[in-house]
Amino acid sequence: MKRSPLQAGFTLGFIGGGQLARMSALQAFRFGMNIAVYATSHGTEPVEMMTPRVFRGGLNDASRLRDFAAACDVVTLENEFVDSAVLRSVQEQTGTPIYPSPESFRLIENKLIEKQTFEAAGIPVAAYRQITTPSDLDAFGSEHGWPYVLKSAKGGYDGYGNATVRDSESAVQAWSKLGGSDGRAVLAEAFVPFTMELAVMVARNATGTVVYPCVESIQQGHICKEIIAPARVPESLRVQVQELAVAAVEAIDGVGLFGFEFFLTHDNRILLNESAPRPHNSGHYTIEACVTSQFENHIRAVTGLPLGSAAMRVPAAVMVNVLGSVNGPAQAVGAADILATRDAHLHIYGKSGSRTGRKMAHLTVLGADAGETLEQARKLEQTIQI
Amino acid sequence: MKRSPLQAGFTLGFIGGGQLARMSALQAFRFGMNIAVYATSHGTEPVEMMTPRVFRGGLNDASRLRDFAAACDVVTLENEFVDSAVLRSVQEQTGTPIYPSPESFRLIENKLIEKQTFEAAGIPVAAYRQITTPSDLDAFGSEHGWPYVLKSAKGGYDGYGNATVRDSESAVQAWSKLGGSDGRAVLAEAFVPFTMELAVMVARNATGTVVYPCVESIQQGHICKEIIAPARVPESLRVQVQELAVAAVEAIDGVGLFGFEFFLTHDNRILLNESAPRPHNSGHYTIEACVTSQFENHIRAVTGLPLGSAAMRVPAAVMVNVLGSVNGPAQAVGAADILATRDAHLHIYGKSGSRTGRKMAHLTVLGADAGETLEQARKLEQTIQI
Repeated sequence: MKRSPLQAGFTLGFIGGGQLARMSALQAFRFGMNIAVYATSHGTEPVEMMTPRVFRGGLNDASRLRDFAAACDVVTLENEFVDSAVLRSVQEQTGTPIYPSPESFRLIENKLIEKQTFEAAGIPVAAYRQITTPSDLDAFGSEHGWPYVLKSAKGGYDGYGNATVRDSESAVQAWSKLGGSDGRAVLAEAFVPFTMELAVMVARNATGTVVYPCVESIQQGHICKEIIAPARVPESLRVQVQELAVAAVEAIDGVGLFGFEFFLTHDNRILLNESAPRPHNSGHYTIEACVTSQFENHIRAVTGLPLGSAAMRVPAAVMVNVLGSVNGPAQAVGAADILATRDAHLHIYGKSGSRTGRKMAHLTVLGADAGETLEQARKLEQTIQI
Repeated sequence: MKRSPLQAGFTLGFIGGGQLARMSALQAFRFGMNIAVYATSHGTEPVEMMTPRVFRGGLNDASRLRDFAAACDVVTLENEFVDSAVLRSVQEQTGTPIYPSPESFRLIENKLIEKQTFEAAGIPVAAYRQITTPSDLDAFGSEHGWPYVLKSAKGGYDGYGNATVRDSESAVQAWSKLGGSDGRAVLAEAFVPFTMELAVMVARNATGTVVYPCVESIQQGHICKEIIAPARVPESLRVQVQELAVAAVEAIDGVGLFGFEFFLTHDNRILLNESAPRPHNSGHYTIEACVTSQFENHIRAVTGLPLGSAAMRVPAAVMVNVLGSVNGPAQAVGAADILATRDAHLHIYGKSGSRTGRKMAHLTVLGADAGETLEQARKLEQTIQI
């Protein structure tokens, strides 16, 4: 790093300017840092309004990314869509460190390599197999049962790039749609009957490792809708999930902030489902509920500062995503009840346009009891539309 | 307002871009708002790095201020240095509301009118008198005793524009230095032997009034050095101070966030000392210690949103200012101990240059007991230099 992180002028660059970068940027500002953003869409990313230093370019435009990195002291990412080879060349040619490292990205950008890496570290994952020919589709179904899930090895998120297939015919169709017949890497994954989805955030750098509580994730249509912290499972199980998350970060030698999603199966096994090399929706509750938020530890981790405590300051917290309910210019309507509720905290992401199902805002409610807090959060979420 | 506050594109303008605007801006961002800044110095104000929308001009340059206000949905201020008549004309000519209102500013920008206003509302203030001739100086000394304090009626802050005078000779000298002999309004104020300085923040708009805890302020060389929340005085006294602060906001029909500083005299009277129509150093502790921070309620108040609870979430909090210890480029050294302490929270303001005694950062420590927390905060403050 050209400057030390708490030196005037230190600039943290974000590749991607959505809500994850926005909430991280708020913490960078708190430490006196400047920020820069590399935006891949045009004039619509929230962080563009938070800095005079906006760079634009394609996700894998190495030349533009180099210009961007050269203007920063450290670069981090709010998504996993830039190719790790591009990241490596940008880092080498500019001398600006990128965290998480290009090598960590290489290990998780491809779901096949990711699963192999985690498996090798002793972390249980669902049965999987690379599908290279249509006959692999039937073979997987015969061995692991129907239905199962097909996934693009690269580039999927929030259910995009995934398909549940029920038989030979739908499998071939989905495989083609995911680009398998055009040579894109596609993965089959056994369907896991689960009773609960769990998630854990981990921050790690040379100063140490900090693990956040194990939380419960409630999804709707493959999108995270609600988070309950801590998860309503025995403490021993929560600890076990935290240990697996730490092992997963170590397996990729991660420096930065990482989110891990797990299935709790019907027979009480824990399987690692997804990993994210960045702040994660399942960690938004930490802003108010934990001593140090995921965003603050993200900044600390990638700039080499000592990490802060991830302990909860309250017995329970519930986060509810506010998804877009209209297509058009964004405007929050009906926020008054939330703003007037003592332990409710509203975060709006500053996106210019709303779209049905788009993540526009979230709401965190703190409380003494998970069940009551969940009930209150759900009621409040019904009062707001964006 | 052209847009509603939670509508995409809503822009909140700050006149002044220092740490108060910076910490307020972080809350505006949290609600999805954009910000713009009117900077009066050149390229050195922290908020300039937080938005692409930077306007520059003199403090009373009505034409530049109009351009600025026209680009905003609401304008607020982080200092009280713009003339209220200028604010009024800018508001009238652009149609952009300014909060606190120009009329509230008129009532407090001149310490003479301010004292008259608060006195008329039944709020006790120290004995004072406008000094128009050198003979007034002696008369005041004879009536209220020496030493006493001379103050510029307009433009003072953090002890600038104040002088303690001990006798006739020093009084005439100080009066001249403050511009009294050139016709500037100067005020004499009786010296108040006090045992403690107390402060209270109040947020107010059409939706209601919220009053923060009464805190204890420890000054060094006329600059706030430490804040202890709540103040170590009986609760009945704290409530009394809060009531006076609310009465003071009502006396100026204030919309926005206001800070009030009080003296607790040797004979247990409470006198209003200073008022600030903006977030205040004595309210920084609220970021971590209260349900809703002063900065969040500042944003809510000036944009017409419902106000949030000002209740403390912890039994005690101590804020310590980190003042510049060198003259030169700013760099925080030795922050590791603070960052590694669970209940310590560091805020660095992003100023490019440090200067001996300049407010560069602050540290808030949360705890169970005021005395222990103060001790811990003081120890931690010794570990950092900027």
